[in-house]
Amino acid sequence: MRCTTLPDMAPRKKRQILDATLELLAEKGYEGLTIEGVAARSEVNKTTIYRWWPSKAALLGSALVEADALDFEAPDTGSLAGDLRSLVDGVAQLLTIPPASDIAVAALGAAVHDPALADAAKGFFADRFARELPIFERARERGEIDASADPMMIVDLLAGAVWLRVVFRQMPLDQDFTDRAVALVLHGARATG
Amino acid sequence: MRCTTLPDMAPRKKRQILDATLELLAEKGYEGLTIEGVAARSEVNKTTIYRWWPSKAALLGSALVEADALDFEAPDTGSLAGDLRSLVDGVAQLLTIPPASDIAVAALGAAVHDPALADAAKGFFADRFARELPIFERARERGEIDASADPMMIVDLLAGAVWLRVVFRQMPLDQDFTDRAVALVLHGARATG
Repeated sequence: MRCTTLPDMAPRKKRQILDATLELLAEKGYEGLTIEGVAARSEVNKTTIYRWWPSKAALLGSALVEADALDFEAPDTGSLAGDLRSLVDGVAQLLTIPPASDIAVAALGAAVHDPALADAAKGFFADRFARELPIFERARERGEIDASADPMMIVDLLAGAVWLRVVFRQMPLDQDFTDRAVALVLHGARATG
Repeated sequence: MRCTTLPDMAPRKKRQILDATLELLAEKGYEGLTIEGVAARSEVNKTTIYRWWPSKAALLGSALVEADALDFEAPDTGSLAGDLRSLVDGVAQLLTIPPASDIAVAALGAAVHDPALADAAKGFFADRFARELPIFERARERGEIDASADPMMIVDLLAGAVWLRVVFRQMPLDQDFTDRAVALVLHGARATG
């Protein structure tokens, strides 16, 4: 990480820069996002931004993980089924409710073309998964799943189905979908884990 | 469909146009795809293309469903598990092996931003799903799933997990993943269908 070789940036300034990055991404798409634009919006010198992030992909990578707009706290409802329903609803909201949906969909769509941004998206998913893992640790402690269950598989089946249905099929995602998807995956995970 | 108001285009000419559309998409991305470029590559007059397809999104919509590069035949292995494993492997190949992967990933990435292209992607998924349905009809006849099982849910869980893992996480998709994902979803569908 380039940041570790520099003294810490003032948290408020860093937050301004990352928030401005996501605002501009939501407004203009990845093509229209520039370091110059972020500098102007956040009232920070362009060279300061470049000192911390060598490219707009690196800047967006930090913003996706650290900015408030995509902030994520893993649910803790007391049951694995409840936590997974909350996760599924969270993914659906992330992909459908502005401004987060503009950010997430623009970033993930652009990540498909751009190798540097693809690394940023990879970092975003790794960060999310690390925050989701306690859900599965608690479920194991409660005896809801075996040690052999595969948390990443469970998360990817559910989040992937939401992505496909909402973004590509453009179909609504009602509570019934969430309940049925979670019940199916949870039964399957218990039978095969 | 605009096409129904016109006499049929010669199949060979239509194929040339649709193949050229996907070639140019794979080479230049959606931004770089133009009707002019397709006309030059397919050696067809630009006005002929516009007579059939009012926009590049409409042209790409036809190409995604009809062109050879993304041709799809539903598997018929004799068991639902076998058919689903084949489907999962097919999605993985579509997303990872050129030239199909260049086409699919460019089209799906661009569909996220572009409402007209999003309709084309929606048409692509609807067409695929219609072709996948016989897999589930045969499975019901063999007694492998109930009438209440939800084929779109099963397909979206599996295909979505592949998309997330391959495109966003950039992780490999080995045979073990396919086997485990299909076993989990199939057990879950039987328990909850």
